[in-house]
Amino acid sequence: MKIVCLGSGNVATHLAKAIKESGGDLIQIWSKTLANAQALASVLNSRPVDDIKDIDRDADLYLICVKDDAIETVAAQLTGVKGLVVHTSGATAIEILERVGLSNYGVMYPLQTFSKSRNLDFKQVPLCLEAGSEGALQQLHAIAARLSSLVYEVSSDDRKLLHLAAVFACNFTNHLYHLSAKILQQNQLHFDMLKPLIIETAAKVQTALPESVQTGPAVRNDELTMNKHLELLKNMPELADIYETLSNSIKKTYL
Amino acid sequence: MKIVCLGSGNVATHLAKAIKESGGDLIQIWSKTLANAQALASVLNSRPVDDIKDIDRDADLYLICVKDDAIETVAAQLTGVKGLVVHTSGATAIEILERVGLSNYGVMYPLQTFSKSRNLDFKQVPLCLEAGSEGALQQLHAIAARLSSLVYEVSSDDRKLLHLAAVFACNFTNHLYHLSAKILQQNQLHFDMLKPLIIETAAKVQTALPESVQTGPAVRNDELTMNKHLELLKNMPELADIYETLSNSIKKTYL
Repeated sequence: MKIVCLGSGNVATHLAKAIKESGGDLIQIWSKTLANAQALASVLNSRPVDDIKDIDRDADLYLICVKDDAIETVAAQLTGVKGLVVHTSGATAIEILERVGLSNYGVMYPLQTFSKSRNLDFKQVPLCLEAGSEGALQQLHAIAARLSSLVYEVSSDDRKLLHLAAVFACNFTNHLYHLSAKILQQNQLHFDMLKPLIIETAAKVQTALPESVQTGPAVRNDELTMNKHLELLKNMPELADIYETLSNSIKKTYL
Repeated sequence: MKIVCLGSGNVATHLAKAIKESGGDLIQIWSKTLANAQALASVLNSRPVDDIKDIDRDADLYLICVKDDAIETVAAQLTGVKGLVVHTSGATAIEILERVGLSNYGVMYPLQTFSKSRNLDFKQVPLCLEAGSEGALQQLHAIAARLSSLVYEVSSDDRKLLHLAAVFACNFTNHLYHLSAKILQQNQLHFDMLKPLIIETAAKVQTALPESVQTGPAVRNDELTMNKHLELLKNMPELADIYETLSNSIKKTYL
């Protein structure tokens, strides 16, 4: 199976590596910045291209891993190719691919947070599939099954909701980690001390619903402790605001 | 070493189990509710008491694991005992133990989230120690070293900051997990799909600073996606408010 990867960011990097490891033939990596295409291609023993006109038109699969606002432009230049054209975005509907004139298309959204510097087991990455036809869906299932053990069929509407939920569970969570690190750093305390707590908090909800394991002053309605905390944050008004917003939301949930 | 545990909640349960496993002689478990003392004592083969006057005055260690606002009352009834009296609260200063008239006292704060239903490796729980004298500190170090590999000396002021940081990194984070589950549930999507993302988000910051691995629309200043997300939350104003508060904080951080 001949595959072209369009993009060289975090998703492209992890997806291309997983394809290579699963035995796929990654014939080209395209990026509008040649150096980026080269960097990824060299690791994966693939061929870098920066002119979209140089893309092989006979590949079996084209994976679009570019920023959401560039998907349409890139996809429009792939009309008439032989293979299946797939985008990987959580927030973008499948219609965008039909609209540009593609006939064989789909979506494969990996529901995970990717950083180039970090390896992960792609077999454990949930892949959310959608396709423009039954035939394309079958092709996509065959591809996804080689990459991951966690394959779901998800409509564009549901994918957008998953993407939104992921912002709460991942992006906002990581920002809370950052804010906790900031509180510690300003007082010469080491973020290392919080690491076991962070892992255990995530591990707990693998087997229990989050609402059944909520702890802390807000769920106990412990006003004394919450007031002490707000006092500690009096020189960090932004953190105090977040503290109050989230504590009020917890209090309301468990009222 | 003869030990008395005062309290039967989440911290008491995990700490008492760890003491038992490390070979400590847990001679009594006190709770003001006899049934709670009995439940924990029966698991640990200890003796339940509900009248604080029945507590053995000759133990080597008294661990106060009660709610913050009950520490003072409980501690006041332990003046004159032979052993070391220790509270386990993050938000409570050590002075409270001196104030009630104790002479041999300290603090051992386990920086972790505990649920009765969940087992964890206590050796990986950071223990924050403070004591009223050098002698008490040495005793406490000897005790802590048998329970955990992660032992720190932490002042009352720093402990309060750690407790505050833990609210952000654990309690607020768990609430974000709950909100993401709520978004999915309302649309018949399964929380299981988010579990690999939740674990990976926590795993990432074990080796990288959170600010170096922040992902999502806010850090990219992707207004299009953020507006789509707010549109999806138009019937959930509380979640929309949290979305805006945290997105604005992320945008400010990476400006």
